[in-house]
Amino acid sequence: MTRPVAAVVLAAGMGTRMKSDLHKVLHPIAGRPMLMHLLASVDELAPAAKVVVVGARREQVEAAVAGTGAAVVTQEPQLGTGHAVLQAQSALAGFDGDVLVMFGDVPLVKAETMRAMLAALTGDVACAVLGFRPDDAGAYGRIIAKPDGTIEKMVEYKDASATERNVSLCNSGLLAVRSADLWPLLARVGNDNAAGEYYLPDVVTIATADGRRSVVVETHADEVAGINSRAELATVEAKWQVAKRAEMMAAGVTLIDPATVWFAFDTQIGRDVLIEPGCFFGPGVSVADGATLRAFSHLEGAEVGPRAEVGPYARLRPGAKLGDKSKVGNFVEVKKATLGKGAKANHLTYIGDAEIGANANVGAGTITCNYDGFFKYKTVIGEGAFIGSNSSLVAPVTIGAGAIVGAGSVVTRDVTADALALVRAEQGEKPGWAAKFRAAMTARKKST
Amino acid sequence: MTRPVAAVVLAAGMGTRMKSDLHKVLHPIAGRPMLMHLLASVDELAPAAKVVVVGARREQVEAAVAGTGAAVVTQEPQLGTGHAVLQAQSALAGFDGDVLVMFGDVPLVKAETMRAMLAALTGDVACAVLGFRPDDAGAYGRIIAKPDGTIEKMVEYKDASATERNVSLCNSGLLAVRSADLWPLLARVGNDNAAGEYYLPDVVTIATADGRRSVVVETHADEVAGINSRAELATVEAKWQVAKRAEMMAAGVTLIDPATVWFAFDTQIGRDVLIEPGCFFGPGVSVADGATLRAFSHLEGAEVGPRAEVGPYARLRPGAKLGDKSKVGNFVEVKKATLGKGAKANHLTYIGDAEIGANANVGAGTITCNYDGFFKYKTVIGEGAFIGSNSSLVAPVTIGAGAIVGAGSVVTRDVTADALALVRAEQGEKPGWAAKFRAAMTARKKST
Amino acid sequence: MTRPVAAVVLAAGMGTRMKSDLHKVLHPIAGRPMLMHLLASVDELAPAAKVVVVGARREQVEAAVAGTGAAVVTQEPQLGTGHAVLQAQSALAGFDGDVLVMFGDVPLVKAETMRAMLAALTGDVACAVLGFRPDDAGAYGRIIAKPDGTIEKMVEYKDASATERNVSLCNSGLLAVRSADLWPLLARVGNDNAAGEYYLPDVVTIATADGRRSVVVETHADEVAGINSRAELATVEAKWQVAKRAEMMAAGVTLIDPATVWFAFDTQIGRDVLIEPGCFFGPGVSVADGATLRAFSHLEGAEVGPRAEVGPYARLRPGAKLGDKSKVGNFVEVKKATLGKGAKANHLTYIGDAEIGANANVGAGTITCNYDGFFKYKTVIGEGAFIGSNSSLVAPVTIGAGAIVGAGSVVTRDVTADALALVRAEQGEKPGWAAKFRAAMTARKKST
Repeated sequence: MTRPVAAVVLAAGMGTRMKSDLHKVLHPIAGRPMLMHLLASVDELAPAAKVVVVGARREQVEAAVAGTGAAVVTQEPQLGTGHAVLQAQSALAGFDGDVLVMFGDVPLVKAETMRAMLAALTGDVACAVLGFRPDDAGAYGRIIAKPDGTIEKMVEYKDASATERNVSLCNSGLLAVRSADLWPLLARVGNDNAAGEYYLPDVVTIATADGRRSVVVETHADEVAGINSRAELATVEAKWQVAKRAEMMAAGVTLIDPATVWFAFDTQIGRDVLIEPGCFFGPGVSVADGATLRAFSHLEGAEVGPRAEVGPYARLRPGAKLGDKSKVGNFVEVKKATLGKGAKANHLTYIGDAEIGANANVGAGTITCNYDGFFKYKTVIGEGAFIGSNSSLVAPVTIGAGAIVGAGSVVTRDVTADALALVRAEQGEKPGWAAKFRAAMTARKKST
Repeated sequence: MTRPVAAVVLAAGMGTRMKSDLHKVLHPIAGRPMLMHLLASVDELAPAAKVVVVGARREQVEAAVAGTGAAVVTQEPQLGTGHAVLQAQSALAGFDGDVLVMFGDVPLVKAETMRAMLAALTGDVACAVLGFRPDDAGAYGRIIAKPDGTIEKMVEYKDASATERNVSLCNSGLLAVRSADLWPLLARVGNDNAAGEYYLPDVVTIATADGRRSVVVETHADEVAGINSRAELATVEAKWQVAKRAEMMAAGVTLIDPATVWFAFDTQIGRDVLIEPGCFFGPGVSVADGATLRAFSHLEGAEVGPRAEVGPYARLRPGAKLGDKSKVGNFVEVKKATLGKGAKANHLTYIGDAEIGANANVGAGTITCNYDGFFKYKTVIGEGAFIGSNSSLVAPVTIGAGAIVGAGSVVTRDVTADALALVRAEQGEKPGWAAKFRAAMTARKKST
Repeated sequence: MTRPVAAVVLAAGMGTRMKSDLHKVLHPIAGRPMLMHLLASVDELAPAAKVVVVGARREQVEAAVAGTGAAVVTQEPQLGTGHAVLQAQSALAGFDGDVLVMFGDVPLVKAETMRAMLAALTGDVACAVLGFRPDDAGAYGRIIAKPDGTIEKMVEYKDASATERNVSLCNSGLLAVRSADLWPLLARVGNDNAAGEYYLPDVVTIATADGRRSVVVETHADEVAGINSRAELATVEAKWQVAKRAEMMAAGVTLIDPATVWFAFDTQIGRDVLIEPGCFFGPGVSVADGATLRAFSHLEGAEVGPRAEVGPYARLRPGAKLGDKSKVGNFVEVKKATLGKGAKANHLTYIGDAEIGANANVGAGTITCNYDGFFKYKTVIGEGAFIGSNSSLVAPVTIGAGAIVGAGSVVTRDVTADALALVRAEQGEKPGWAAKFRAAMTARKKST
């Protein structure tokens, strides 16, 4: 039987290098704030409590975690990572179990890694520290450990001997400790150092001095990549995308140029889907088997049905639902609208707040006029209807099944099923007018 | 004098890792099924016969090779590569010459490499095996050869000694054998191995045991990259694109960002053509000297004339032919239509099934209404005509040379040359109506 | 006190490998001819004179440098780099100071590097040569220098001993010499070599033989990358973009995928601007703080105001000015037009030569008809006006503040403030017509 788990997420850093008015941990990766990536992984452990420790911009973080069950506490002043964890103590009053300490700007730690850290808290083990071996260990703090993972020493790079610096195992700073150990250990952490700060890793050092065993759990360096700048944000985003693209291809999706397809955290793509270069997925998109997404398509909150064809240059916005074998072509925007099976809107069209029946054909340049400046209204197009090009459908309006709307019509009243609707002036002609106009303009152009 | 050549292309693998309903060898690279790349290279040798050996999905392969002169035979059950080649024997009955054995999922082998393999079949040489030296030889079978290319031994990685594993020369599996040697050798190949399969490379081993000489022909590892997954498909596509982009630049094409220009197998681009980032070429495109393709353009089956300007965001579909110095601008789609010299369609337009005369100007938002739900009709626009914005030209219709069509017109009858055509209602105004409407809606909005 | 500076830029090479009708040094990097990058860096030194030495296509270079104060002289015939510099002598008659010799196809040398070269001309130093250490020194000429930078020998690769070839310090060819030294030294350079050319580096050799000291100034290899082909042009463009993207991110711009955002030489982007993948910047763009540029946007000569939202698929052309919190959405083109604070043009619209008031809403499919084939005219839309979808505004025309234009209207006369303008025929209906049409067409289709 597993013990209860609580997560403390440290997010009190100023994030100065981001140069942003947005809290660092709220900058998105794959369309989701980095903090929410981390909390989503934490949630896989069904934690008893989650506490986010913030400094400035508390209200931004509170708004972001609203509804997730995470508590937000403030660290003020900010006296180091050990001090930061202490701010979570009252929020965890009464909690007895394992505490995971995570960093809000190290967002891609997997649930399985967290589980491995918790699993390492066996017997007398005081702390399980997450270690990694980067390509270039640089100035990371080192973990000196025995082959069985027992930590002998945690050492900051600046304090490390030459021999210690040769050790490739680095300290991510993330750790797991039992609550019964954590608070007493933290209470003993001092700030007798150059910065005058209370350092979290000191709990390991104190426990070791007490004769308690701590262990290192190793993971891949990519998983503990931290984000302190927009360049690092882009680097982590890139790593995430590379992994997601590989996962998609392995599942049977063709990406002609994987490097120019950008997925969101929750994108779902079916088998035998072809995606041309230059496709962007915001959150909330699912694409069914056999669909084709042509180049330069942009999708958010949309459902694409089986064997549907989308793009090139199709913009699907939230609430777009494309039926089986339907087609949305170039320079077409669809928002909060359903296209039935086999329905088509192939060119230069705006479809918003609409229901389009099966096999209906929406001509080039058609606009659903869904907005009067104050309210939005709905357009309904029946099965098999044919909307002529450059038509304006002034909602609320219904075009009956099988009806035809003549090109260029501004439709303001419902159209009966199987009827032809025409809104059009007579065609007039002024013979020779263009020739005269041209002569006059040419003369004027010369005189200017 | 060269001997006749036949090619046997093995394509019976299940392609399970592709996770696709499409036969693996039909997945495209640069817009052409990989099998067709290989057959195109084979065709440069003017082969007497081509046989594709398939397993499942025979009908897909048959449809793809229809008209290429390739025969399709089925291997059922699938008992190894040696057994696969044997299935081609009856299709090659009466053929006396050199047989090239290729793999359908190793599609980028060049004709010159095939020629080198055939050229190696001199004197008493029994088999010419294509070898390569990958960066990481990994688990590939090794070829133990003398400095002059004479093969001493072909060895599977699992059977190789440590010394043999240190050999960097690997076996691609592709080979050339005279027909007079191939069938007797294949008849002697056994299946006394763990998998119970008949292995093609055993013909080399048997010939060597007979005292016959076989030789290795070396090529670059990229050329024999095999495709077993969508990730490998993307990798081969990427290698192909890198090579094609280099070829284009060497020929005098400017690619601002080569990594985001995607060519098709048959793209033709002239000298001093500028291509901005994000341009996609489907099959059948030619671009003449001095043309400019701006960002995010998408071309298929189109001809772009000298010094024409295309894009950004131009979509040229099959049958689009753009004359000298013509312009197709942003959010414009052209399909099966000719634009004369200097003609322009600069903004938000659909031109389908049309002939547009020299120096005609097609205004923003113009749509050729070429489809009535059943048939397609043609629009003809004369030289120097001027089509006002947001016009709908209901085909079949002809706008005479030099005519002007007023903005917003729905033109259903031909317009005489040099005439002005207008289809427009009178402009009416309801003074103060908008202010009252706003007041009413604002009140309603507050009450909801 | 610094001495006066003159720059001689050598640009007489044929540029054959470019395969272009455009002079090599005029091919652009980041939207600016490479020569102009170099001259811009030179201008940071406030030079007394700039001389560009050309061979063929003099008129192209003259047109490009017009107004920059650079003189253009011709080298004809072309007898080597030493001879090329001599062609600048008469243009520099009377100049007494330091002469920088640059190459027009080595365009990214920084002003600070030029300053370091000039600063090295102290005391008795005759020449300051720019050296670099490439990853692969290959066939570059080597500089044999003492640890203090004193040059012992300049040696062409082909003439170098094995020991000399092991030297990693290479000669860029760029140098600084006092005018009082340059011309006498050049006069002594001979052409007794295989090519019969007068080589510029010989001035160093001659000075050294005279007992004069010359020194090497080192810089990064990337800075002296030369351009002889379109592939090298693309490589230098890529290096430039990588550096600019890093600079942008460091300044507080989020680039989701830096590799697919292409900046121009003068792009200005504010803090907390988000740029989605696939955005292209031509010259002359500034984006204010907090703006969002969504995917596949294309900007040239445009100003984007604070917190404005642009794209996806927005095309901003020269003269587009977007106010605070204004929105330009998908498939919208804006040219020489101002959008007031909070104004919106969200879908499928062309706005050219226009002023759009604050909070005005331009409906989908609206076109400003600004061109009659001869002249351009202006459209003015007042504050808070609402333009219905698919409208055509035939300029010159003014829509008063708060006015509403009904969908599909072709507006040719001014609209009074707060009025409703409607240009629309009556909606007519032919019951059952569509059903009969369908039956007839279905029959015809079967019979064909």
